[in-house]
Amino acid sequence: MKPLALFSAGVAATAALAVCGALAGMTVHAETPQSDVAQSGAPRYDASGKLILPADYRDWVFLSSGIDMSYTEAPAVAGMHMFDNVFVPRAAYAAFKRTGVWPDKTVLMLENRTGRTKGSINRQGQFQTGEVMGLEAHVKDTARFKGGWGFFGFGGDHAPAAMIPYAASCYACHQTHAAADTTFVQFYPTLLPVATALGALNPAYVAETKDEPKP
Amino acid sequence: MKPLALFSAGVAATAALAVCGALAGMTVHAETPQSDVAQSGAPRYDASGKLILPADYRDWVFLSSGIDMSYTEAPAVAGMHMFDNVFVPRAAYAAFKRTGVWPDKTVLMLENRTGRTKGSINRQGQFQTGEVMGLEAHVKDTARFKGGWGFFGFGGDHAPAAMIPYAASCYACHQTHAAADTTFVQFYPTLLPVATALGALNPAYVAETKDEPKP
Repeated sequence: MKPLALFSAGVAATAALAVCGALAGMTVHAETPQSDVAQSGAPRYDASGKLILPADYRDWVFLSSGIDMSYTEAPAVAGMHMFDNVFVPRAAYAAFKRTGVWPDKTVLMLENRTGRTKGSINRQGQFQTGEVMGLEAHVKDTARFKGGWGFFGFGGDHAPAAMIPYAASCYACHQTHAAADTTFVQFYPTLLPVATALGALNPAYVAETKDEPKP
Repeated sequence: MKPLALFSAGVAATAALAVCGALAGMTVHAETPQSDVAQSGAPRYDASGKLILPADYRDWVFLSSGIDMSYTEAPAVAGMHMFDNVFVPRAAYAAFKRTGVWPDKTVLMLENRTGRTKGSINRQGQFQTGEVMGLEAHVKDTARFKGGWGFFGFGGDHAPAAMIPYAASCYACHQTHAAADTTFVQFYPTLLPVATALGALNPAYVAETKDEPKP
């Protein structure tokens, strides 16, 4: 099965997780105190530096969803549809709207859910089911990560996740193609106008999309 | 163009809006004070009883999104894709999770956005664009609406909207087919398990879907 990816740019989440697993425990950081951060949505790490899945991410601000998105021309798997939902803590969302930049300690959560057509009275299109097929995080933590950001893919057990290595394609792809602050704001319709108005767009993104229709 | 509809069950939003327009000012209620309700997400009405668009609905809790959903077998419009995003105020979401029922003064907002495939580096599937094609509200206000709930469709100018008449198909359809409290909880994946566990499912929905796969 081929998961989405707003974050992983066509790199299968399962592959990313396998890489993470191999590196478990490689980097050791002090555990983050749980006080203060639970409300703010700031990242929490375990004693080995793995990211703890934010339990309340569905209560965060919704940035957008897509379906069957892929950054390659490879065809999708027949008969399988995958939504991606992206959430960010309320304080981070408010800060981005003011500045066009994510504040330090921002966590963006990407959730994949299987789509289905036939269910109850629905007959066309796709709705999202209870089946969560993937959870990834993109974390801004400038004291911790080279370049300021780290990617994480959680397994089905939702156990803390080790950082995906910097050599993974997600890092370079976000750096090059993401509309603002290495995040795919071009796919977050309430934030793209904000970043545009604040002059916060990545020049490489602007050049790459100059002939595209707006919005 | 054929908009979706979690709320309007295949009734084109444009048709619903036309109906609303014809009834503008039919029912007169006292204007709701703005204090107290802004935080809670409770409905606000103008002096003629029209619903004021909640300006901050994108900051509410996201229930789910679908794409090209329709409750009829009629084929979709070729080359046009439409997402629907549903939001509910945080306090109402928390109350539903406790009780399986929406508290009085709950507003569910449905937002339609055009989907697009080609944009920036995306090559497959659909992402949501800045083009909002429809905004509808489903409001629980037991002192105001027969059966407790009213539907509203906002025009492109986002002006206050008159209630869609009770004879519109959305009312009977939600009463008959919606999974819980006349809302399509079967399409809200974090709430369906809650309503199921709390015994809050509509018996007609349970009977209608007894042979379907779960979740």
